[in-house]
Amino acid sequence: MDHSSPLTLVKIGGNVIDDAEETARFLATFAALPGPKLLVHGGGKLATTLAGKLGLPTRMVNGRRLTDQPTLEVAVMVYAGLVNKTLVAALQARHCDALGLTGADAGSVLARRREVRDVDYGFVGDIERINAPRLTEWIRQGLVPVFAPLTCDAHGTLLNTNADTMASALSAALAEAFDVTLLYCFEKKGVLADSADDQSVIPFLSEADYAQLKEDGTVSQGMIPKLDNAFDALRKGVSKVIICHARDLSACATAGSAGTLLSL
Amino acid sequence: MDHSSPLTLVKIGGNVIDDAEETARFLATFAALPGPKLLVHGGGKLATTLAGKLGLPTRMVNGRRLTDQPTLEVAVMVYAGLVNKTLVAALQARHCDALGLTGADAGSVLARRREVRDVDYGFVGDIERINAPRLTEWIRQGLVPVFAPLTCDAHGTLLNTNADTMASALSAALAEAFDVTLLYCFEKKGVLADSADDQSVIPFLSEADYAQLKEDGTVSQGMIPKLDNAFDALRKGVSKVIICHARDLSACATAGSAGTLLSL
Repeated sequence: MDHSSPLTLVKIGGNVIDDAEETARFLATFAALPGPKLLVHGGGKLATTLAGKLGLPTRMVNGRRLTDQPTLEVAVMVYAGLVNKTLVAALQARHCDALGLTGADAGSVLARRREVRDVDYGFVGDIERINAPRLTEWIRQGLVPVFAPLTCDAHGTLLNTNADTMASALSAALAEAFDVTLLYCFEKKGVLADSADDQSVIPFLSEADYAQLKEDGTVSQGMIPKLDNAFDALRKGVSKVIICHARDLSACATAGSAGTLLSL
Repeated sequence: MDHSSPLTLVKIGGNVIDDAEETARFLATFAALPGPKLLVHGGGKLATTLAGKLGLPTRMVNGRRLTDQPTLEVAVMVYAGLVNKTLVAALQARHCDALGLTGADAGSVLARRREVRDVDYGFVGDIERINAPRLTEWIRQGLVPVFAPLTCDAHGTLLNTNADTMASALSAALAEAFDVTLLYCFEKKGVLADSADDQSVIPFLSEADYAQLKEDGTVSQGMIPKLDNAFDALRKGVSKVIICHARDLSACATAGSAGTLLSL
């Protein structure tokens, strides 16, 4: 395979999506990034807001929201509908040839419903197979896939899938054909040495350092699955993974001069 | 251009979409249709139901629902989200390589917001340009585009667009590359000579007959824009247009032995 062609794969977090001004700024930067690229977006609070308006109860299991049928339908409406198409239309207006997708579309990301062991999380999917040849072809043609965090299984059941995991799995699958840089963009400047100090960005983080930070509690909660996904991508052939603020997308994608750069 | 390759373009109406059993039956038939194909779906009552649950007022202008911003958002959630992705996932499970689209995706259908003359219908789009080369390429690769009735304009504004019109415009644009059969599938057996008698299907309808039926009131209301769109497709190079019951899809697509066959 020819690894010489670069691909920038960006995951944009829900907290950025929730802020119209931040989203517009992000999209302008993303649209202007040179070369092949792909976007994975989270959902933000819109789904929770809509579920609330519809009077759906929020059912939590081990700190995670249970995805029952009505919750899944809300996720599909908000993520695959409103959020995805709003982003796609805005990118098209900026001459970025965006194509909105869920894993169901063109069989791009096949998943399996998570097995019920101790806990039934509901309609949640673990990724099984990515249609990398098709995505590769589209990207080479100049299309910019924009993924909502939804997949489907072989029986046609739509499933909620974590957007960080989608980004990691897509990066790894596309690393066969591209030299992939994966950027996790969110509302912090990177991995912080002190969660109370937004300026305390750790510029370089090895997997050994990460193990240490987990042990001493510096890194906790939502950062742990994000970093697990990030290191997983590196182990699976992704060239570079950076965790950064959405506003630093350009600096990170082109110069790698902001955020936290991970290494094995 | 090589006109020898057939393409079956099906519009499935909202009343069918509203009925889970009818939809499942329709999708099984659609998935089994041989050769290249494309699906355009309406929205059904789900959007109205959701708008009602959210307490959005229904504002009508000249008998049409006004698409204000909240109404547009509901349409995007329901049509591009829930309906589109549910259909795509179900088709994928039936080994039909469906790709869900709005006009925004890959710049497939560019529209212009309808000008305000006497009436402002809100976020409603009239189709300006279809990216036929891209759709043609996808269809030739075996993909089955599944369109939700939404477009966007050059400024990135999403717009509601009538699904019958989408089907007509897509058929006409693809008639350059394919020998297109357009099937309007809905909950009636065709154009009826007596609207109270479901068996009174008119098997053949010319444009002159249609003018007569409009004049004497046999054809009225929702059938008029549908037939206008249908004849428009014929005038623009579509080979065959049939109006039929969703259950007769197979008979119409293969043998043309049901429904109302139109001719200029």
